[in-house]
Amino acid sequence: MSEDEIVSLTCPMPHRRDDTVRPAHGGGGRLMHQLIQTIIAPHFGGDAISSGQDSAVFDLAGGRCAFTTDSYVVKPLFFPGGDIGSLAVNGTVNDLSMVGAKPVSLSVGFIIEEGFSLEMLTRIVQRMRAAADSAGVALVTGDTKVVERGKGDGLFINTSGVGCVPDALVIGPDQVRPGDAIILNGDIARHGIAVMIARDGLDFDADIESDTAALNIPVQRLLDAGIDVHCMRDLTRGGLASASVEIAESSGLSLVLDEASIPVRPAVRSACDLLGFDPIHVANEGRFISFVPEAQAEKAVAALNGVPGCEDAVIIGHVTGEAAGHVTMISRIGGTRLVDMLSGEQLPRIC
Amino acid sequence: MSEDEIVSLTCPMPHRRDDTVRPAHGGGGRLMHQLIQTIIAPHFGGDAISSGQDSAVFDLAGGRCAFTTDSYVVKPLFFPGGDIGSLAVNGTVNDLSMVGAKPVSLSVGFIIEEGFSLEMLTRIVQRMRAAADSAGVALVTGDTKVVERGKGDGLFINTSGVGCVPDALVIGPDQVRPGDAIILNGDIARHGIAVMIARDGLDFDADIESDTAALNIPVQRLLDAGIDVHCMRDLTRGGLASASVEIAESSGLSLVLDEASIPVRPAVRSACDLLGFDPIHVANEGRFISFVPEAQAEKAVAALNGVPGCEDAVIIGHVTGEAAGHVTMISRIGGTRLVDMLSGEQLPRIC
Repeated sequence: MSEDEIVSLTCPMPHRRDDTVRPAHGGGGRLMHQLIQTIIAPHFGGDAISSGQDSAVFDLAGGRCAFTTDSYVVKPLFFPGGDIGSLAVNGTVNDLSMVGAKPVSLSVGFIIEEGFSLEMLTRIVQRMRAAADSAGVALVTGDTKVVERGKGDGLFINTSGVGCVPDALVIGPDQVRPGDAIILNGDIARHGIAVMIARDGLDFDADIESDTAALNIPVQRLLDAGIDVHCMRDLTRGGLASASVEIAESSGLSLVLDEASIPVRPAVRSACDLLGFDPIHVANEGRFISFVPEAQAEKAVAALNGVPGCEDAVIIGHVTGEAAGHVTMISRIGGTRLVDMLSGEQLPRIC
Repeated sequence: MSEDEIVSLTCPMPHRRDDTVRPAHGGGGRLMHQLIQTIIAPHFGGDAISSGQDSAVFDLAGGRCAFTTDSYVVKPLFFPGGDIGSLAVNGTVNDLSMVGAKPVSLSVGFIIEEGFSLEMLTRIVQRMRAAADSAGVALVTGDTKVVERGKGDGLFINTSGVGCVPDALVIGPDQVRPGDAIILNGDIARHGIAVMIARDGLDFDADIESDTAALNIPVQRLLDAGIDVHCMRDLTRGGLASASVEIAESSGLSLVLDEASIPVRPAVRSACDLLGFDPIHVANEGRFISFVPEAQAEKAVAALNGVPGCEDAVIIGHVTGEAAGHVTMISRIGGTRLVDMLSGEQLPRIC
């Protein structure tokens, strides 16, 4: 697809010259996609960008290499189940894992606000190292910048990562086929709700912890089990809804999801009901969907069920032959509705 | 060197538990080195970190790969001779080039403050693309985050980069040998002064433009000329002084620099005199020193002189047999003085 086509296809709301960035431009929904596709992506090059994946894949040093980047601005820096440091490591490991890459090395860029506690920085770096060790990756290069008081917000972290992709492995939205089963590796919406409760000091009875986790192990388990994985996507900003719509639009095929099959813990569902959120729009940091041939679906679920944190992996839908690029949800009472990304912002600074 | 040794050797000013980050922690001088070496580096892994280089070099996909990261917080975003976008591309290209890598792909992470102009963002992304095209690298993957008004400062950009390192090439401080000539590729201190004038609206008669430039072309020219380059370092935050001291300390060898040989344009020298700066401490973004065998020094200078922007390349000093790891400057009037990094902060947010 040419750059012009990307722009013309994905610019339903043209920017005006005097427009400015709004919080929703970072929210993982329609507006963020529009910003990326109209302003940023046209200036990027390479097939990896055009295919709408989180990691670029290209030849380097005689083999295939995956490369990805993410900045982390989560607020607060520590939340139940995680912190900005482990999140920054896991998130980048996961972006590499989603293209089938084995994560090898991460870089770390700190932007620190003047006055930030060195003791807290030390704790965060320790968490990063622990998360890296747990995922089997090395933190190999870094950078530190300091901005004046009031020009940052404590700490922002960028992590970039490189990994190796096996030569024969091709994973991406263009590999999705009609009939493919869609598998989710566990319950959704915990990360977003955990961060929101921590940020706003909401008083819920139940302990809700972020699902933040490295996904390279479950992905490796799928590949080791001989599953012909067609596509994977982690459910971060924008949640299951954005990830599903992205893949439907990129592949040009329609997806049908079965709401009753999607695991949501009771406490998370209560919180979502109270806050007026649909769990499919809430961010996760250790959840992904995979698209696999229907005949291998049960085997894939079994492979995932053996991985700690993925005991509730389950088939949540399938790909139809319809070439509309839509996502439809069959509700608990049997009705159907169209799933879309949020156009605005639900939970700012969730990652 | 073990992690404990790194900490004990480089912690002359131990942090207290209640210490906080100060502007000088980002300034490229002593305090930044202390922060990195006591708090951050002990949690990083790999030889590349220990050797004190800006890029990590490791095996990936069957070949040798270089990997680096830098965040850019320069203020203002546009300055004479450059802007944050081209700076972010050139800076990361340069970190790869300094280990002899051929830069291949860059990632870009934007942290945007709510209210930032989309038109300005567009211009900056255009500058990034132009700089990338000029350096022959591709922008292949990106990320966008938005923070609320007052929690950022317009725009911060992280660029990370990967490149290929030829198998036989080993470049680094441990390759420096007594007798090596030290070559500088042109006049110093323009970037720092240009940014400072733009920031503070100082009224100087002379036009002083940043030296921001990609260094992969001059480096390639050195290698193509058959020069056995032992070590290279770009002169960014902390300037020629920090770069020289870093290499002296890493190599354990002493350097002697000849002040009269170091090119400084008259307008830049006047500005430095007026502001009380020594040009050797001022930041550059297109300057580097290379350490080459004495017998190849003239040939190396000739190779550089043929590259646009490097017409003033010159030998500025040599490595002595003394194992003290010091840098000495022979002044214009023949005296000698010890060169050190600044302990405090000279020009915050210069890159």
